[in-house]
Amino acid sequence: MNDPVAARQSIITLTTDFGPDSPYVAEMKGAIYSIHPHVTLVDGTHAVTPQDILQGSFLWKQISKPFPAGTIHLAVVDPGVGTDRRLLLVEKADHYWIAPDNGLFSQVVAHQPVRQVIELDRPDYWASHVSATFHGRDIMAPVAAHLSRGEPLEKLGTPTHEPLIQDLPKIQVGENCLSGEVIHIDSFGNLITNIRRADWDAHGIPDHCQATCGTDHAVGLQNTYSEADPQTPVILFGSSGFLEFSIVNGNAAQQLDAQVKTVVQLDWSP
Amino acid sequence: MNDPVAARQSIITLTTDFGPDSPYVAEMKGAIYSIHPHVTLVDGTHAVTPQDILQGSFLWKQISKPFPAGTIHLAVVDPGVGTDRRLLLVEKADHYWIAPDNGLFSQVVAHQPVRQVIELDRPDYWASHVSATFHGRDIMAPVAAHLSRGEPLEKLGTPTHEPLIQDLPKIQVGENCLSGEVIHIDSFGNLITNIRRADWDAHGIPDHCQATCGTDHAVGLQNTYSEADPQTPVILFGSSGFLEFSIVNGNAAQQLDAQVKTVVQLDWSP
Amino acid sequence: MNDPVAARQSIITLTTDFGPDSPYVAEMKGAIYSIHPHVTLVDGTHAVTPQDILQGSFLWKQISKPFPAGTIHLAVVDPGVGTDRRLLLVEKADHYWIAPDNGLFSQVVAHQPVRQVIELDRPDYWASHVSATFHGRDIMAPVAAHLSRGEPLEKLGTPTHEPLIQDLPKIQVGENCLSGEVIHIDSFGNLITNIRRADWDAHGIPDHCQATCGTDHAVGLQNTYSEADPQTPVILFGSSGFLEFSIVNGNAAQQLDAQVKTVVQLDWSP
Repeated sequence: MNDPVAARQSIITLTTDFGPDSPYVAEMKGAIYSIHPHVTLVDGTHAVTPQDILQGSFLWKQISKPFPAGTIHLAVVDPGVGTDRRLLLVEKADHYWIAPDNGLFSQVVAHQPVRQVIELDRPDYWASHVSATFHGRDIMAPVAAHLSRGEPLEKLGTPTHEPLIQDLPKIQVGENCLSGEVIHIDSFGNLITNIRRADWDAHGIPDHCQATCGTDHAVGLQNTYSEADPQTPVILFGSSGFLEFSIVNGNAAQQLDAQVKTVVQLDWSP
Repeated sequence: MNDPVAARQSIITLTTDFGPDSPYVAEMKGAIYSIHPHVTLVDGTHAVTPQDILQGSFLWKQISKPFPAGTIHLAVVDPGVGTDRRLLLVEKADHYWIAPDNGLFSQVVAHQPVRQVIELDRPDYWASHVSATFHGRDIMAPVAAHLSRGEPLEKLGTPTHEPLIQDLPKIQVGENCLSGEVIHIDSFGNLITNIRRADWDAHGIPDHCQATCGTDHAVGLQNTYSEADPQTPVILFGSSGFLEFSIVNGNAAQQLDAQVKTVVQLDWSP
Repeated sequence: MNDPVAARQSIITLTTDFGPDSPYVAEMKGAIYSIHPHVTLVDGTHAVTPQDILQGSFLWKQISKPFPAGTIHLAVVDPGVGTDRRLLLVEKADHYWIAPDNGLFSQVVAHQPVRQVIELDRPDYWASHVSATFHGRDIMAPVAAHLSRGEPLEKLGTPTHEPLIQDLPKIQVGENCLSGEVIHIDSFGNLITNIRRADWDAHGIPDHCQATCGTDHAVGLQNTYSEADPQTPVILFGSSGFLEFSIVNGNAAQQLDAQVKTVVQLDWSP
């Protein structure tokens, strides 16, 4: 129903830790439009916690899923800007991904083969003056723009080895129990953990298991946020495919005083 | 000066309670672009107070007004996602409106006849996998995208009865006085009440009437925020057509400690 | 590599103090799309501190730099809306600028000749009903839309004199020392001062000079945020061309309790 070739030439998503509504985002957009005025730019999110690469990687992957083949995804969470960390362009699953090689690619390249990895080392495709502090605007944005115009990957850089992987924190497995931790909190206060549906299935966790976060308990896996009574703690697999601990019509993060790294434990003793 | 047919095929606005800069918004955009890469997407606002349907309805209507005929407006404030609340597509006043039938349509359908109401019940036009928690991305966004490509309304669902209406709180009328309440606070701290220009006219309120909010008084209806001295409380009909209580060059919500539901009273005793 | 004529007809940036994700921004976009459905709208920033014209001017200039020739930049920081302040359209350096004449143009018109200044006084190009409180939506947005469709400047208003200039606060120069002040704090907490690269060069400031902000000191000019150890205070010329006082991997504004107007002093006694 969509045309990958046309799409490749039209959509770039932008994900950064610049904060909502940052002027730095507009500067990146200006740099892109200067090269390709007819591209479609889409804000992924700019609310990545500053310099939180793990969260950035999680959100970058999540955001990209519904986009059509050929979309270019640009992420800038770049505490090492100006140092010698590499800038990479990755082709995978018919999408293109551009970011610093600092772990941001972790979720993107996990679990599926990468088709090409290119190191961005061709200043001809960069801004004429490259600042030391804003490679998002001066290198990555221009490269994304040239790619969206149809420039072949090989011209934009040199083939190189795979990106650095920074794993999600590991889940801990015991007898009839398993514990994970919060990796992201959404704007509703839902606690998104590192426990995947695949983990749930692999350990044969029964749907009636109990989940504990702080002193609160949720009993039994729900399908939606509103199957239980208001203010009841529930667990469910949210739209991200990771287990979430939520409070019906409430804000779990505030009410449980939970944060990223807060533990969520599952128990299913008979 | 604009072409409704072309416009219908090009503009979708998005209004949600997902919070500014939410990755969930990007996911909805990806779902739309996957079906219609050349559509124009416009953020209405994503700063609706979570699950506040009344405020969402007010803002949804307000935002839509300046858009051209043929625009598709999509709103997701959906505490009942995954339950059996209906999803509707409404055609009215040459615009198209898609939302859950939980009261969000209240301001939109008030005061003017609706041309068509369609219940979204055709999974052929939805995502291939529909999650239990995110119908905005998996049902409403795809339907909006198909509509923007020119799909006839009849193919997207089944004609049904009118949407649920949840009235604004009623104004209270006494002798030479009238009281309303705050229904929305904008980013400047202006207090937008449920008192309409039509109410003002119907009750013959004189322009020199006094307005009271908490312990503060504003005397006389102004035309603009800056006709009075800085820090003076004023009342005026803002761009929404509702009466606003404001403080010149100040933040009325903060300075008066006012919130949604705070009472604003008008007195015009001779 | 880009076509200015096409670009002029396609890109309008929007910069306001309406707050992130404000419905008022969507209303301006609707007004523009009603006149020119195929224009490209780009959010500059809407996070200008309410009614802070100096900061708005700084950000407006900064955001505009990377955009292609022909771009139209619209800024609304307008505490005097509804009074007799003028609304202007300025052509300069192949860009177009529309804003109230209250000092917002200061950074834009500084240091370079202006080609044309037009006062917006032709209601034929405005909304049919102009509210007293929202000229952004009812006058400036429609004029920008008509300009983006190719309407000649002369038809949109009357030639007039140059815009009002409100200077940045002056730097103070002593013997082997110089002091400036914070004019903007970005989302990372970096303190952007009014000290320009040109000031640095003109006063022959050596790279090993010491900078003081509150009780914290940074020694020596850096090229990037990450040349020094984490949590070290540093100074550098950021992407804006102004001197920034930052803390490596930290938030200088929070850690130094600094605000707009906080003093930053440079010393280079031998």
